Amino acid sequence: MTDVPAGRSIATVCLSGTLEDRLDAAARAGFDSVEIFEGDLVASASRPADIRSRAADLGLALALYQPFRDAEGAPPSRFESVRRRFAAKLGLMSELGVPMILICSSVAPDTIDDDGLAAAQLGELAGMAGEHGIRVAYEALAWGRHVSTWQHSWDIVQRAGHPALGLCLDSFHVLSRTSQYADIAGLPGDRVFFLQLADAPRLSMDVLQWSRHHRLFPMQGGFDLPGFTRAVCDSGYRGPLSLEVFNDVFRQADPRRTAVDGMRSLVCLKDAVRAPHGPLAPPPALSGIAFTELAVDGESGPELQRWLDMLGFAHTGQHRSKPVELWEQGKARILLNSGVVRRPGDSGSAAVSAFALESASPAGSARRAGQLLAGPLPRRRAGTEADLTAVAAPDGTQVFFCRTPGSDRGGWLDDFLPCGRPPGGDTGITGVDHLSLAQPYDRFDEAGLFYRSVLGLSNDEAAEYAAPFGLIRALALRDGSGLARLALSVPLLRRGEWAPGVTHPQHITLASSDIERTAAALERAGARLLPIPGNYYDDLAARTDLEPGLLALLRRVGGMYDEDTRGRYLQLFTPVIGSRVFFEVSQRIGGYAGYGTPNAPVRMAAHRALAQYAAGGN
Amino acid sequence: MTDVPAGRSIATVCLSGTLEDRLDAAARAGFDSVEIFEGDLVASASRPADIRSRAADLGLALALYQPFRDAEGAPPSRFESVRRRFAAKLGLMSELGVPMILICSSVAPDTIDDDGLAAAQLGELAGMAGEHGIRVAYEALAWGRHVSTWQHSWDIVQRAGHPALGLCLDSFHVLSRTSQYADIAGLPGDRVFFLQLADAPRLSMDVLQWSRHHRLFPMQGGFDLPGFTRAVCDSGYRGPLSLEVFNDVFRQADPRRTAVDGMRSLVCLKDAVRAPHGPLAPPPALSGIAFTELAVDGESGPELQRWLDMLGFAHTGQHRSKPVELWEQGKARILLNSGVVRRPGDSGSAAVSAFALESASPAGSARRAGQLLAGPLPRRRAGTEADLTAVAAPDGTQVFFCRTPGSDRGGWLDDFLPCGRPPGGDTGITGVDHLSLAQPYDRFDEAGLFYRSVLGLSNDEAAEYAAPFGLIRALALRDGSGLARLALSVPLLRRGEWAPGVTHPQHITLASSDIERTAAALERAGARLLPIPGNYYDDLAARTDLEPGLLALLRRVGGMYDEDTRGRYLQLFTPVIGSRVFFEVSQRIGGYAGYGTPNAPVRMAAHRALAQYAAGGN
Repeated sequence: MTDVPAGRSIATVCLSGTLEDRLDAAARAGFDSVEIFEGDLVASASRPADIRSRAADLGLALALYQPFRDAEGAPPSRFESVRRRFAAKLGLMSELGVPMILICSSVAPDTIDDDGLAAAQLGELAGMAGEHGIRVAYEALAWGRHVSTWQHSWDIVQRAGHPALGLCLDSFHVLSRTSQYADIAGLPGDRVFFLQLADAPRLSMDVLQWSRHHRLFPMQGGFDLPGFTRAVCDSGYRGPLSLEVFNDVFRQADPRRTAVDGMRSLVCLKDAVRAPHGPLAPPPALSGIAFTELAVDGESGPELQRWLDMLGFAHTGQHRSKPVELWEQGKARILLNSGVVRRPGDSGSAAVSAFALESASPAGSARRAGQLLAGPLPRRRAGTEADLTAVAAPDGTQVFFCRTPGSDRGGWLDDFLPCGRPPGGDTGITGVDHLSLAQPYDRFDEAGLFYRSVLGLSNDEAAEYAAPFGLIRALALRDGSGLARLALSVPLLRRGEWAPGVTHPQHITLASSDIERTAAALERAGARLLPIPGNYYDDLAARTDLEPGLLALLRRVGGMYDEDTRGRYLQLFTPVIGSRVFFEVSQRIGGYAGYGTPNAPVRMAAHRALAQYAAGGN
Repeated sequence: MTDVPAGRSIATVCLSGTLEDRLDAAARAGFDSVEIFEGDLVASASRPADIRSRAADLGLALALYQPFRDAEGAPPSRFESVRRRFAAKLGLMSELGVPMILICSSVAPDTIDDDGLAAAQLGELAGMAGEHGIRVAYEALAWGRHVSTWQHSWDIVQRAGHPALGLCLDSFHVLSRTSQYADIAGLPGDRVFFLQLADAPRLSMDVLQWSRHHRLFPMQGGFDLPGFTRAVCDSGYRGPLSLEVFNDVFRQADPRRTAVDGMRSLVCLKDAVRAPHGPLAPPPALSGIAFTELAVDGESGPELQRWLDMLGFAHTGQHRSKPVELWEQGKARILLNSGVVRRPGDSGSAAVSAFALESASPAGSARRAGQLLAGPLPRRRAGTEADLTAVAAPDGTQVFFCRTPGSDRGGWLDDFLPCGRPPGGDTGITGVDHLSLAQPYDRFDEAGLFYRSVLGLSNDEAAEYAAPFGLIRALALRDGSGLARLALSVPLLRRGEWAPGVTHPQHITLASSDIERTAAALERAGARLLPIPGNYYDDLAARTDLEPGLLALLRRVGGMYDEDTRGRYLQLFTPVIGSRVFFEVSQRIGGYAGYGTPNAPVRMAAHRALAQYAAGGN
């Protein structure tokens, strides 16, 4: 079984803020060392000795100083200035107490294509470093002028034959160019001085731009990080696993969250490298969404009660100690909580504040979450109440794990005093199909990894589409059973003053076994659903061969339609209630596996039009 | 001379918002027609007849309906559904009153590679369209499955030989693949049914992604739009010049500004196509920045007075009718205006509210601005005051054109009552080197085109760099003389809660003929300049061979250094005054042509550190 070293490192360039901000964030997230990126140090108001002592106070080793550029293959006339620059950096590193420097392969136009020269020059620099007790890790940049593969860099390191010179292997530089990395396992591990890890989406673009803007933490992109890391570990490498990610979003996001995201990625990576014997117990099986809690206030609460009533839900219980109502229909359960401490900007609106997953082992789910840096949230409960563990998702939503008893009441449901009404009506609504959770701009990739790793969900459908007020990225995730589904979305660019927030609320999709019946029940109850534009139906008729009866039904009730090779999907929507949440009712027919994504832009425009109409606009 | 048609059109997909928002914006910007993008219509709550009458009310023709996909080369079994879908769209177009539909080359995997079949099918569809009086424009997508060049699409159109079938030429699809477009001039112009225009930066990436995310308006990117447009016009094409731009930023930005930006691009394009006989008179020569006005309040005003005094400026004049002070030193003039109506969020800060350019013909400059959709701003003035024309830049900054008399007072300076003090001290400051203007996120590309076209500036230096709180895009522009320079910058991503705004203020760079003298004068005056980290100087010493005396000077005074092949650049900075503006003092030595951009990240970190220190942080 692959032996994975214990060290966990992160390059300061992964994070945002001052160097101090970055060191603090790395330490808080549990890293034991950092790579100091030269630009971050140069810009810092703290002197090397201050950085050294601050890192020491934080329990952080300084593992690597980087990058040192355009060293090997330099014409002799230029190599003199390389020597001087290198000597200065060795002095600086001694002040910092950093034992290793990264030299990346030259990109300078005057670089000479001569491995013998490169080896001799690197050997000379390694000799200088060795005198300071410093080692040199040589890395092939994917866009190096003459040296751009790990094999080539290894040839030169061997040729130099200096004990203070070894390899730096970077997953991005290797995997962006080749899938030929199995031989890395055969390298002498003590010659691999450093391992840098970054994932990335598979993009077809200039590799330098790809590297500088679009890297991701391991397990967030499309590269085989487990396979690569396994090969490096199998060589006998004993240094840290070190994250080195250049990402436009991370660079401007709160580094405390980014560092946690990075550490979580390393826990997941180690688990995958050692699969099936990783450090994590497998995620307990999920079997659906037990409840969804909406935080409400005096304005949105009554409006939600009215809608739940029209949708056929019954107010079945009242929490024993908290201002929380339980509404039920089939297996769909909604809690209305008027006691949630609101986040700023939430006033006058309802929002999904929590949801609970049916877990085969709530304790096991919570344990796994803790191992993945999502520790239990503090909760107040009265003595007899159920001990539900909640963890915080990246956007602050509380995620509970529970096991709801079958036919009898019990478990967490006993925390609710029965209101004497049977659960729900006869509208066809049977449960919750999925939750659609709009994510904070900075946290989309983190959220994907969080839900995949903590809950054991898999990516289901990734999409990007043009909504009326800008592009949207979407990622749906589901568990193996298909009973627990989450649909995440985020604007491709952070929205400014023009694009209204109301186009991007959260929603709860209720599963109906018969949407026609649900629509009829809603009509009887006097519900005014979201009006869908007539143009949509004209287009639908033009591009599908929908039977006229179904088309007429959709037109009449404001339904939407999607299909895939396996089946069909019918949808209805409520208006936005408050300003941040609405309900969808959907019916899956056959094996339809999607989320109605092609309809999302029209639905968003319809919500916008309704909001404008309600506001007295045109 | 090339005859450029008069029609100006824009595709609704260029703009953000509801279809109504987009139509309104297009009409306000002066377009006479639009292309209706299918998705925008489908999502609209307005029925085709409503759109038709709204457009008519706005004076907008509906020039084109698009796109109709996957038509030609369809297997016979699928072509039946193509026919039905096409018939439905023809009916819709008749309701809308649109006389032309765009068919783009098929991308469907089952498309048959048979030009004869494609021609026959397109001919059949053209026949159907012809019966409705509708024409079909066939366009080769750059990523079309079998048809991806304009030559190939022209072969098929000729082969079909139907009078209702012609070509749509799109500059992106042609120029992203080839520079072979001169032969377009030889096409029969009446067979070119439609011309779509988009520019783009030269990127090395998948062409579909490039097209969908990174298009720009003409004259904003790297394509030869004038040459391409000239070729199409020389064919005898008489339809409109129509903008079709997919751009992530435009999609979420206020469409009223985007539409103006688009119309300005067409004015510039026409001018360039007909160069040297375009519709615009050449921009009058500029010879520097006459003054820069800072809007101040009770807090920032005294602070700015103190700094101007320490920098060696003298308060030389007081405006006759407005609360504006004139401060002078050499040719550097700063106005402090405490009467500017502040924009929201500006309170407690100073900001550049206006600047004036020395123009050989202020009236000519203003006339050109008006032709480029930057009309004169309303201004109140007393009877004897100078008639200065101001226009609004995309960020709202007022741009004045003036001619400051040489040695004697006069002109606009006569609006200021002399305070009896001679202009300025003996600090070495001689004038303004450049203004650095942080741009609103949505308006960066618009600002570049605005300053190039309205002022006749040229791109000087484009850069992208990593600042402590995120990446920054920068573009410097200058006039031919090099006396009028502007440096624009914008975050690559709109900043969120973490990244502080203070890292991205505006600044005025004062030119010094002797920065050592300036520094000494500041020292005597008791000025506390921005402290630059010691780490910066250590790095500077390592990577340059600066003479020790100069390095010591820089270290002592907090100076920064840059060099290029032609010369050197020395810089000093004040702290941020208020929260949005600071001064730089710079000395150009030799022919240095840059803006000290490599130092910007360190300077930004230093401003951040100082702000944290001032706030009592670490």
